[in-house]
Amino acid sequence: MLGNFSYKNATKLYFGEDSLKYLNDELPKYGKNVVFIYGGGSIKKNGIYDEVKKILSENGKNVVEDTGVMPNPTSDKLREGVKIAREHKADLLLAVGGGSCCDYAKAVSVSVNCGEDPWEKYFVRFDEPTCEIVPVGCVLTMAGTGSEMNAGAVITDRETRQKTGHVFGDEVMPKFSILNPRFTMSLPKRQMVAGIYDIFNHICEQYFSGEDDNVSDRLAEALMKSVIRDSLVAVEDPYNYEARSNVMWAATWALNTLISCGKTTDWMVHMLGQAAGGFTDATHGMTLAAVSLPYYRYVMPYGLRKFRRFAVEVWGVEEKGKTDEQIASDGLDAMAEWMRTIGVTMSLSELGVTDDMIEGIADATFILDGGYKILTHDEVVAILRDSL
Amino acid sequence: MLGNFSYKNATKLYFGEDSLKYLNDELPKYGKNVVFIYGGGSIKKNGIYDEVKKILSENGKNVVEDTGVMPNPTSDKLREGVKIAREHKADLLLAVGGGSCCDYAKAVSVSVNCGEDPWEKYFVRFDEPTCEIVPVGCVLTMAGTGSEMNAGAVITDRETRQKTGHVFGDEVMPKFSILNPRFTMSLPKRQMVAGIYDIFNHICEQYFSGEDDNVSDRLAEALMKSVIRDSLVAVEDPYNYEARSNVMWAATWALNTLISCGKTTDWMVHMLGQAAGGFTDATHGMTLAAVSLPYYRYVMPYGLRKFRRFAVEVWGVEEKGKTDEQIASDGLDAMAEWMRTIGVTMSLSELGVTDDMIEGIADATFILDGGYKILTHDEVVAILRDSL
Repeated sequence: MLGNFSYKNATKLYFGEDSLKYLNDELPKYGKNVVFIYGGGSIKKNGIYDEVKKILSENGKNVVEDTGVMPNPTSDKLREGVKIAREHKADLLLAVGGGSCCDYAKAVSVSVNCGEDPWEKYFVRFDEPTCEIVPVGCVLTMAGTGSEMNAGAVITDRETRQKTGHVFGDEVMPKFSILNPRFTMSLPKRQMVAGIYDIFNHICEQYFSGEDDNVSDRLAEALMKSVIRDSLVAVEDPYNYEARSNVMWAATWALNTLISCGKTTDWMVHMLGQAAGGFTDATHGMTLAAVSLPYYRYVMPYGLRKFRRFAVEVWGVEEKGKTDEQIASDGLDAMAEWMRTIGVTMSLSELGVTDDMIEGIADATFILDGGYKILTHDEVVAILRDSL
Repeated sequence: MLGNFSYKNATKLYFGEDSLKYLNDELPKYGKNVVFIYGGGSIKKNGIYDEVKKILSENGKNVVEDTGVMPNPTSDKLREGVKIAREHKADLLLAVGGGSCCDYAKAVSVSVNCGEDPWEKYFVRFDEPTCEIVPVGCVLTMAGTGSEMNAGAVITDRETRQKTGHVFGDEVMPKFSILNPRFTMSLPKRQMVAGIYDIFNHICEQYFSGEDDNVSDRLAEALMKSVIRDSLVAVEDPYNYEARSNVMWAATWALNTLISCGKTTDWMVHMLGQAAGGFTDATHGMTLAAVSLPYYRYVMPYGLRKFRRFAVEVWGVEEKGKTDEQIASDGLDAMAEWMRTIGVTMSLSELGVTDDMIEGIADATFILDGGYKILTHDEVVAILRDSL
């Protein structure tokens, strides 16, 4: 059954090999002052920086650059970004990069016109924006977070080691996003597969909750099957446009609210992974991958029917002559095999987590109640230890 | 592979048992003058009319009613609606009913401020709107057309017997739509199953085109599986909320552009069905049902790979020991069996089409080129005759 919900998603998406040219259609809609946000400079190597710069210039924009957005954007960087956008009287924040850049741009967008500290306001107190929001546009260079068509932002506070996400209302979604699958092709394999696992886990987080048969879960299964198939192709052949285009589009729909419409969701893998990320600054998707199987194997008995369905519908596990537990378990085995094949990190140790950090990470883990089992602190510790 | 496309869908949807109350959130966004559009008066029997009227009154709206919107809205009715909206200086067109009412409201919305004849402008010349569009909101009482979240409108001209659809740009989409699955429960079974087949065929039209594996087709398969499962429940138990909620939500996503992103589409069943509808005024979904199997059986050899996939992925047809043709054909047999079970009309004769109309219907059929075979006039005639 689908419960009550509302849905709105007004981000305009331009998708395809020639999609960057549509920046010319979007820029005239906004004022002169643009903050051009990007990360560590890889866009300078692959030519995207020059292309964007040229289009901005041709459209007569007054551009200031906000660079060095890190993979896990920090509260300090956020405060710096707010200052830059404020001084520049930004009319548009144009993020060019992966999910971190988009997330960061959104966090800046709700803070430019607010006097309060953005970390405290949005990521500690979880206030809603009370000031005018500066429009955000994204040019995506990596498939993963879905940030290009949602209202979420994840920020890390280095001081408290908290990595926290805030899902804002639809007014915070990017006004437009430009998705060119070719832009994702030059990404190092490790980052590509981290992104792919992030996508897959976004779907799992929304899927592994609730017992009934509903449209949202069916759509989730479709997206999972696409990601599995196309990730295997992309790992073998990173320049395969078919695979890259499917992965990129699946990523968008994996986390733009569609597949959670009318249903409960879990998100405990993200809580565990983000807590570990706060301690290690490890790549987001890899932290999720490292904790996933220990978590899912632990909660499987509490959500057996869904894990059984996952095995059959998503992984094509043969049902004959097996108990429900065996079928469900075979599904998780198939998932583990796929994870090994694409090459994600499957232990927290490899990401720099040591046993003495476990208690701290467990303390930093938000316990949510949408999954099949509300974890105790001891269970969190056990799962984290099992993930080492 | 996903080809180049853009996507935007800004309709705000309120879904669920208590969704009508959100009309109170939407109405203040628009001016005082509301045209309350509805059909034959069934909303007066089930209480929806009174509820809407009360909310309009509580919000201080100046309301005029535009009633009698027929299942296949005519160009004459459209001209009347434009006159009503113009005289009332409409700030909002509020359609309460099924897809016909929503379609009609959209057709009125783009015509109120244009001097030209709306039928000629939009359904003969296929012009784009050149005048200010009056906002549209929908309260949906029937699941089927997807009109609540798309920019399409189908209008019938009785004089020329043309039934024609125009898909406008995203600015013509309803600003908001209210979807309460309970509102669909009192619908007579025949109308319910016609709506269900309309949904299913919308998905087929977008699915049966192209050869590759892509996210859009995967999502289409998910929606088809939901519709099949939940329609069987709803036919047995029309008051089953789970089934009704899933059918209603699947209908929305079956035709709001998502599952056609980046791919070609067919739409020949609609061309054939609409041509027949222009001659008989038969229920839209039933005309589609009547021509579907003859059409799909005819084009199957040209799109064998996709029909084979349809059989396996959607209908769970056993593959072992069968040729591709047998597998594909078994899929269409399974679809036929489902159609018989839910009780849709499977011949044009039952809808009042006689052999002497066939040439006229064939002449009125637009031939599209997105499917697996571009039909000749003779092939259209043969398929229509086979549908009798």
